[in-house]
Amino acid sequence: MTALPRGFSALTANIGIKDASTDVVIIACEQPAAAAGVFTRSRFAGASVEISRAHIANSRAQAMIVISKNANVATGNQGFANAMEIATGVADAVGCDTGDVLVASTGVIGRQYPMDNVRAFLDGLHAPLAGATLEQCATAIMTTDTHAKLATAMVGAVTVAGIAKGVGMIEPDMATLIAVFMTDAALHPDDLDSVFRRVMATTFNAVSIDTDTSTSDTAVIIASGSAGPVAADEFEAALSGVALTLTKMVARDGEGATKLLSVTVTGARNSSQAKRVAKSIVNSPLVKTAVHGADPNWGRVAMAIGKCSDDTDIDPANVSIAFGDQRVFPDQLDLAGLDKLSRYMQHDDVTITCNLGIGDGAFTVYGCDLSDQYIRINADYTT
Amino acid sequence: MTALPRGFSALTANIGIKDASTDVVIIACEQPAAAAGVFTRSRFAGASVEISRAHIANSRAQAMIVISKNANVATGNQGFANAMEIATGVADAVGCDTGDVLVASTGVIGRQYPMDNVRAFLDGLHAPLAGATLEQCATAIMTTDTHAKLATAMVGAVTVAGIAKGVGMIEPDMATLIAVFMTDAALHPDDLDSVFRRVMATTFNAVSIDTDTSTSDTAVIIASGSAGPVAADEFEAALSGVALTLTKMVARDGEGATKLLSVTVTGARNSSQAKRVAKSIVNSPLVKTAVHGADPNWGRVAMAIGKCSDDTDIDPANVSIAFGDQRVFPDQLDLAGLDKLSRYMQHDDVTITCNLGIGDGAFTVYGCDLSDQYIRINADYTT
Repeated sequence: MTALPRGFSALTANIGIKDASTDVVIIACEQPAAAAGVFTRSRFAGASVEISRAHIANSRAQAMIVISKNANVATGNQGFANAMEIATGVADAVGCDTGDVLVASTGVIGRQYPMDNVRAFLDGLHAPLAGATLEQCATAIMTTDTHAKLATAMVGAVTVAGIAKGVGMIEPDMATLIAVFMTDAALHPDDLDSVFRRVMATTFNAVSIDTDTSTSDTAVIIASGSAGPVAADEFEAALSGVALTLTKMVARDGEGATKLLSVTVTGARNSSQAKRVAKSIVNSPLVKTAVHGADPNWGRVAMAIGKCSDDTDIDPANVSIAFGDQRVFPDQLDLAGLDKLSRYMQHDDVTITCNLGIGDGAFTVYGCDLSDQYIRINADYTT
Repeated sequence: MTALPRGFSALTANIGIKDASTDVVIIACEQPAAAAGVFTRSRFAGASVEISRAHIANSRAQAMIVISKNANVATGNQGFANAMEIATGVADAVGCDTGDVLVASTGVIGRQYPMDNVRAFLDGLHAPLAGATLEQCATAIMTTDTHAKLATAMVGAVTVAGIAKGVGMIEPDMATLIAVFMTDAALHPDDLDSVFRRVMATTFNAVSIDTDTSTSDTAVIIASGSAGPVAADEFEAALSGVALTLTKMVARDGEGATKLLSVTVTGARNSSQAKRVAKSIVNSPLVKTAVHGADPNWGRVAMAIGKCSDDTDIDPANVSIAFGDQRVFPDQLDLAGLDKLSRYMQHDDVTITCNLGIGDGAFTVYGCDLSDQYIRINADYTT
């Protein structure tokens, strides 16, 4: 069991959102804390995202509530009013401003919360919160996740802790699924914000399970300051490690996934071209199914590069493709080579590397294979 | 059995590209004919596409060879030389210029043709070609298609006939899978070209099975002129009907598909925004799996609209969503409504309509559901 960083307390509960499993977590600081967040760019962003985006604009937060199994999205004015009532209830219990409460929510779209249950829970809520562990917090935010996702790192006396959820409807776009990072480091809010955005760009913003950008993506970090100051570069390295660990956990636990698929594109014009091509590969259903079946059909990677048709500086004559450390293009694999490739693709971790031969831009993205289990999970979700 | 339009003859054969099924078709006109074509924009376009694109640039063609079960893509200079040798062989047999021969090829990527077999076939080839029917032509170009796809229409004395193949790796981008249209109409090449591009834009360029743009997409029309002139608007309507019929056949026969999914977006800023949003819906794995399972999870359509995050004029307050004739958003469906929706989604044809409430742009795209059969087909393709 892992304690939260200093200055944080948390409580988890079941309030009957969908069934009898834990479906709410509240995390609170002893006092207003530096905070940063990135959110979905979806045009159908939920009420929780709208409220959190507004409340974190001053780089300050003291508490956060995460409700799982109902996204409170496409629920209109009633859904917004319900989310505000929840933020106010948390603020009253914790003893802070409503404007210092963040709200996040994932689950089914288009349903109102069961507000009778929610109100009964808020009425009984009071500070100090019970001492929930990081494992309990990570468990409370799960929907169809198969296991809780948490990671921690130390920088001197400072702890960085993160939890995340997310298995489907995942291709974050300048944002992420739901990830909450806590640290007892003391950081200026502006520094915290810039470090956080840089780290998210190469971790949670570099993952795609199924190309479907969630309406509820939320990643926040709250710094209580209880452990004092820290060197910014060391803190960034620690946060990056925690975020990358969680990112890989999310990718590997993609709905129905059996493998972690990492795709690195090098030799690109710049990093955004590298990311675009890498995303095209990691998102290709034909690449994903080939990886699932350990089918040495490397030509599908060529196809996925080729469909970036606006990138007219990509010339097959300059491109090379490798799986693990085995180059497959332009080398012409013989049957022994194809057999070796198939054996590599049976691993739990499959890495594809492409060099475009244009410049020195590079980017790595994370995804997973596509299995019939993904279909079964998603063909019968609400019913 | 359907005869080819006047002025055309065809031959089909097995030349052992992969197995004992028919894998080649040659279609020839009695003399050089007006022709138009659109091709994949893939950066990894195959040798066949490169050659056809060059040969059709003068709006003239006399013969076409389609080889299935090997795409001849990512095969380097050897692959290009092989394709040119095939074009020359066909030209010699038909008695036309090599520059009037079109080549198309689909199947596995990254393998050379078995040229010994190909040469033996070309050596025995001579005009006139045997009288293959339209059904035989359509069958010869199949790979994992479950049935042959052909359609015809008449305009006065003029016949328009089309054949198509394609089940996976299908999201044509300014181009299409493989579709061949034959007509005995006499049309000026410029008119043929503009009519053909307009028709392709709303038919084959409006279909997506799996977001994966093929390296081999080729759609051509050849007009023998044998039936004389025709009114351009009537011809366009007939061609559009044939192309739309084939497009729906392709969508409905998508790998593993059990349903045709049509998505119409109206009320958009313009037709390109309508197409972008419609594609986002028809390509969403979560929408496709919900349609497969008849799960009334309409919120996923809201998600798919929302992820068009650069379309900042989309406001959920102005959006409405319907399945068939049942509006699901912003209406809040009760249990009876959800049950009705689920029953509708069990049909073989599912139509989703979204009004963005912005302008009067509209577009319809065609796709299919995503089933575990798609995974099984594609996890074990080459081996």
